[in-house]
Amino acid sequence: MHLDIGAALGDDAEPGVDEGDLDDLDEQVAQAHETIAAGRENDDFGYAALNLPEETDTSVIREAVEPVADAEYVLTVGIGGSALGAKTVTAALADDPHRHVILDNVDPEHVERTLSDLPLDDTAINVVSKSGTTAETLANFLVVRAAYEDAGVDWTELTVVTTGESGPLAELVAEHDLPRLPVPDGVPGRFAALSSVGLVPAAILDVDIEGLLAGASAAADGLGPSLYDSPGYAYGAVCYALEEEGAAVNAVMPYAERLEYFAEWFAQLWAESLGKEGRGQTPARALGATDQHSQLQLYRAGPNDKMVTVVRPGERAEVPIPESEHDSLSYFAGADLGQLLDAEYDATVASLAEAGRPAVEIELDELDAEGLGELLYAMEAATVLVGELADIETFTQPAVEWGKRAARGLLSGEETEETKTVAQRPSYRID
Amino acid sequence: MHLDIGAALGDDAEPGVDEGDLDDLDEQVAQAHETIAAGRENDDFGYAALNLPEETDTSVIREAVEPVADAEYVLTVGIGGSALGAKTVTAALADDPHRHVILDNVDPEHVERTLSDLPLDDTAINVVSKSGTTAETLANFLVVRAAYEDAGVDWTELTVVTTGESGPLAELVAEHDLPRLPVPDGVPGRFAALSSVGLVPAAILDVDIEGLLAGASAAADGLGPSLYDSPGYAYGAVCYALEEEGAAVNAVMPYAERLEYFAEWFAQLWAESLGKEGRGQTPARALGATDQHSQLQLYRAGPNDKMVTVVRPGERAEVPIPESEHDSLSYFAGADLGQLLDAEYDATVASLAEAGRPAVEIELDELDAEGLGELLYAMEAATVLVGELADIETFTQPAVEWGKRAARGLLSGEETEETKTVAQRPSYRID
Repeated sequence: MHLDIGAALGDDAEPGVDEGDLDDLDEQVAQAHETIAAGRENDDFGYAALNLPEETDTSVIREAVEPVADAEYVLTVGIGGSALGAKTVTAALADDPHRHVILDNVDPEHVERTLSDLPLDDTAINVVSKSGTTAETLANFLVVRAAYEDAGVDWTELTVVTTGESGPLAELVAEHDLPRLPVPDGVPGRFAALSSVGLVPAAILDVDIEGLLAGASAAADGLGPSLYDSPGYAYGAVCYALEEEGAAVNAVMPYAERLEYFAEWFAQLWAESLGKEGRGQTPARALGATDQHSQLQLYRAGPNDKMVTVVRPGERAEVPIPESEHDSLSYFAGADLGQLLDAEYDATVASLAEAGRPAVEIELDELDAEGLGELLYAMEAATVLVGELADIETFTQPAVEWGKRAARGLLSGEETEETKTVAQRPSYRID
Repeated sequence: MHLDIGAALGDDAEPGVDEGDLDDLDEQVAQAHETIAAGRENDDFGYAALNLPEETDTSVIREAVEPVADAEYVLTVGIGGSALGAKTVTAALADDPHRHVILDNVDPEHVERTLSDLPLDDTAINVVSKSGTTAETLANFLVVRAAYEDAGVDWTELTVVTTGESGPLAELVAEHDLPRLPVPDGVPGRFAALSSVGLVPAAILDVDIEGLLAGASAAADGLGPSLYDSPGYAYGAVCYALEEEGAAVNAVMPYAERLEYFAEWFAQLWAESLGKEGRGQTPARALGATDQHSQLQLYRAGPNDKMVTVVRPGERAEVPIPESEHDSLSYFAGADLGQLLDAEYDATVASLAEAGRPAVEIELDELDAEGLGELLYAMEAATVLVGELADIETFTQPAVEWGKRAARGLLSGEETEETKTVAQRPSYRID
């Protein structure tokens, strides 16, 4: 994996980073790295996430999923960090990503349809909630369980639970003697992809999770006191510097369908970790080349408040574009789809640079287990680094608690301060 | 359908619109409406889009798809406006949205996998390109055609083409005597959902496209010289006013899985129409309640540079949450998933308002054909209105042309000004 920040440097990019300022930035990185290294050393809350590649024991995961290893499908019941990492890994690496189905919303119609589309007797259930109390996950799991019972399928034989040591989910595990995988200590859900939280479906679908962790380990080994030595820190440092110069939006645009969920995972990591105290870039999820026909006009000609992060694998499958009888298509002659996609990628980066819009390129050697592990780890390191540089609390998410309490109050019918605020919220209706 | 702008008004919201300023805004709307009405009257370029509900003849579409009406699947080969509208309609309204598959990217692995997963002899092909020259669409169609031939399936029997009167696709239609549907005159692709560009897959999948157009017509009839009379204009006017006050990001967050693609469609409409001359809100695609566990922290506690648009249907399927043996889940007692989702919605809007972050609510009476038609039309009217208020060229997308020329040059190997710029683009690599 390497990073190319050329199109974010120099006088032309606006916002941009002066090449001469990189050394100052590097001093800040060195300081931040000290904090991060100390946090890792002590396994402090949050920083512990960066130790997962060494700490995660895949044999425990493989053993826990053994009873369901023959299942054709895996249904993950989880939301946010309990779903995005798992989906990112299988979407990128499973032979058939459709075998991993997610219930990460409580839309009744969608839940019903999802369950009726699946062969329940051949579908493992992967329930994930760190606290064991997440309302959406528990409600969905109750519905899922009942659907299995209605279909005459013993859900207890097909379920793997990842949760902490207490809470309703842990009680359920004890009661029904289910395999339980622990959540790692001191790791927020969005940083837990490289643990049981993110790896159970991949293990069931025979993904090389050991290779994934090996790739992450290699990235971890690369972290040091300088941005020049690690793509992860370099990415974080450049994003931070661009944000300071006005890049309020970070559009993340992988040029690979298998990385579409990576953009979702990154968006949570970035937004929930760094969206605090009136700051934090807004991650915009995009996909190349598709979004060239949707978002590129804005990226290139809209406000100078963005950076674009493009990601691509160094190798692609070979699918030749067949010859055509039409002269107007002669420019395809001898090309394949991957060349077209790479041409679009190069053209987009150059077109942004030409318009003075900063772009940062992330190139994986290959989109395999090692390559993905390296990428995920590098992005986590980048996020932690930005949190240090911006001096915010990277590992908490205090702003969502109010809404959780309000929703729970509304559902129970109990009157609380929050439900009163909901009832009295301003209304001005136009029909 | 109605709009509630309460949480975007008042002293607390920042950015916000003063209720007292609505009348001034309404005067601007009245002027803009004159321009829009005149443009519609003359069927001028772009404005013609707002006449589609009256102009689109569904019997022509139904007739064209008749030969493929029995197909189990529809494969749309198109990109940007040639795919997003079609997908939005089937995702929201088809009995089984999975029967509509899209190739809107040239990722070789993805194209290969998609084709190998489909029963080609039972899959209709819907090729859409306004110009008939879109590189990604033509390349994919050449690959698709060859796959059908390899499988011994006569693709000419299964293909419907929507394109203009000239170009490679039109030639192909003539050569192979395929059913061709015209693209409507003077309507940019992103505004063409309510024409053959967006309706062919829906027609094949037996969606009530007549109801969709009827809903759109009703919204069209509601347009008048005041924002107080039409949710579409009101939405556009409030977005414009909020953008002027600093809402650089518009996060669009439907609380319905069936509207996930609506957010994608809207994002193109908004970004490509309004992202010009250094202005234009960045649309952030989100989904409720899922993104409460991903983006809400940022929306509530990050920079004051956003508005959040929430969308929900007035009715939901009934899926009760089964009773549980755990006391800690007693707050679910008697509730169903839809109530939980609506509680999350109310909590999120109130939580944003409580934090002084503007939210705009769009509520559909029902997520049926009429409701969706009304929604799509209202959003198009909103987009056109913002373009007038901001005095920009809503219907063009000049900033993407450079990249298209560059990609074509790169692929053909021809040296052009663009390919030279690509070759010389700045590079600064970190490994």
